[in-house]
Amino acid sequence: MELKLTAAEVEAYLAEVFPQVDGRFRILDLAPMRLTCEMAVSEVNLRPGGTVSGPAMFELADCAYYMVTLAMIGRQALTVTTSCTINFMRKPQPGPLRAEARILKLGRALSVGDVLLYSAGVEAPVAQASLTYSIPPDRPR
Amino acid sequence: MELKLTAAEVEAYLAEVFPQVDGRFRILDLAPMRLTCEMAVSEVNLRPGGTVSGPAMFELADCAYYMVTLAMIGRQALTVTTSCTINFMRKPQPGPLRAEARILKLGRALSVGDVLLYSAGVEAPVAQASLTYSIPPDRPR
Amino acid sequence: MELKLTAAEVEAYLAEVFPQVDGRFRILDLAPMRLTCEMAVSEVNLRPGGTVSGPAMFELADCAYYMVTLAMIGRQALTVTTSCTINFMRKPQPGPLRAEARILKLGRALSVGDVLLYSAGVEAPVAQASLTYSIPPDRPR
Amino acid sequence: MELKLTAAEVEAYLAEVFPQVDGRFRILDLAPMRLTCEMAVSEVNLRPGGTVSGPAMFELADCAYYMVTLAMIGRQALTVTTSCTINFMRKPQPGPLRAEARILKLGRALSVGDVLLYSAGVEAPVAQASLTYSIPPDRPR
Repeated sequence: MELKLTAAEVEAYLAEVFPQVDGRFRILDLAPMRLTCEMAVSEVNLRPGGTVSGPAMFELADCAYYMVTLAMIGRQALTVTTSCTINFMRKPQPGPLRAEARILKLGRALSVGDVLLYSAGVEAPVAQASLTYSIPPDRPR
Repeated sequence: MELKLTAAEVEAYLAEVFPQVDGRFRILDLAPMRLTCEMAVSEVNLRPGGTVSGPAMFELADCAYYMVTLAMIGRQALTVTTSCTINFMRKPQPGPLRAEARILKLGRALSVGDVLLYSAGVEAPVAQASLTYSIPPDRPR
Repeated sequence: MELKLTAAEVEAYLAEVFPQVDGRFRILDLAPMRLTCEMAVSEVNLRPGGTVSGPAMFELADCAYYMVTLAMIGRQALTVTTSCTINFMRKPQPGPLRAEARILKLGRALSVGDVLLYSAGVEAPVAQASLTYSIPPDRPR
Repeated sequence: MELKLTAAEVEAYLAEVFPQVDGRFRILDLAPMRLTCEMAVSEVNLRPGGTVSGPAMFELADCAYYMVTLAMIGRQALTVTTSCTINFMRKPQPGPLRAEARILKLGRALSVGDVLLYSAGVEAPVAQASLTYSIPPDRPR
């Protein structure tokens, strides 16, 4: 399967439909079924001790998977998360986080895949997420 | 098992260790192994169409479960989420969300349970989450 | 929403489509969106020390949720599990296990809910599962 | 981290502690933190239409992850699954299934990782699982 959108198109679309997250997520690499992106971490995402909060990590995993799915299916704002399992494995450093998302199945109605989260200065992943997105039925094919 | 903290003590402790979330979560009811709380939803938590974002729902589930666990084990700031599975089932209304958290197992090292999220004006739950928290080994018993 | 099948009809249908499981699952109680059933545990389901194996508990959760979904939507053999999260919390006794399944959302395409598993002689649940079933699109409505 | 057991030692240990599964699982490849194995599928694991049942896929994911964890920590029979999330993505063929397990975090108390399941003749994975195993506290280090 081929990409329907470029990295720049995905970022522009995200800024359009989710103005709140605009500018915090930057795509580092995009290939069919795979995307790597980075999330800037601000004060509000930190926890005492300087680590990144769980909800911020969830948001990154969720957004990375949304972006890789959109890159494959095109602009479908109504594509929504139906489920996410996230395992928190290591304490991230207070800096930016990187997400590596891959689609394992892109069906007509569901996109299923996983995301690994990395923190600068920590070699092993800090979190792993499995996600399912529901794709609106009326999408053009 | 009995409560180690009152609702007021849990709220005060949350404000102390997570200053960022202070004031957004209000405990409505607390009993051994069960807690109901409400999260105020601000502009930043909304999505186009007026619905509450997935990360905001995750944060509520996570925080509700943290609070019920603390109420049972006492002030243990290092208690951290190790995993969460969340199923998004219905679109919430743009108002506040309510969480009903229950502990299914409170062991020495892990607290395992679930949370149902409700939106004002929607009778059925909008999301369901299963969570595991790790409890620091050195807690006084 | 109302039941489309009785407990006897669900059991008969299960025996027809899954001959391998016939006779091991018995419905104890069935109401709209809720079902309680029991699984007989045989030697092959046991683990050293006499506890029930994880795969056997998964099978019970999966089958209980399949049955409650069928009871609501009617005979739809192609209804399949798309995801399951199961938390194992306590060691079951070697006897039969009981499952309490409830549907939290019954949509056109997905049935989402959870199951608690109980072991005779253990008051608290031994496992908790969240499941999503996909419902074939051509079902009569 | 290094392997504590060889593939033959893991298979022999599995046969000893879980006599019921003996002979059904064969390790194809073992490296630190990674294991590939194959499960023979018998009549009892099949579903109408010739596909492999969900519980059989769960069993394979669970057993593959158990084996890779044991290979890293040594003979610790009391190592038990605490949670598993499994996403079923494609219908497997009726033949043997292959599992590729990797450990993402091997801590003192928990082993966290994932497993992809493949069916002969289907290029993409048929299922993905994330697992957490609890490691008994008294293990020699």
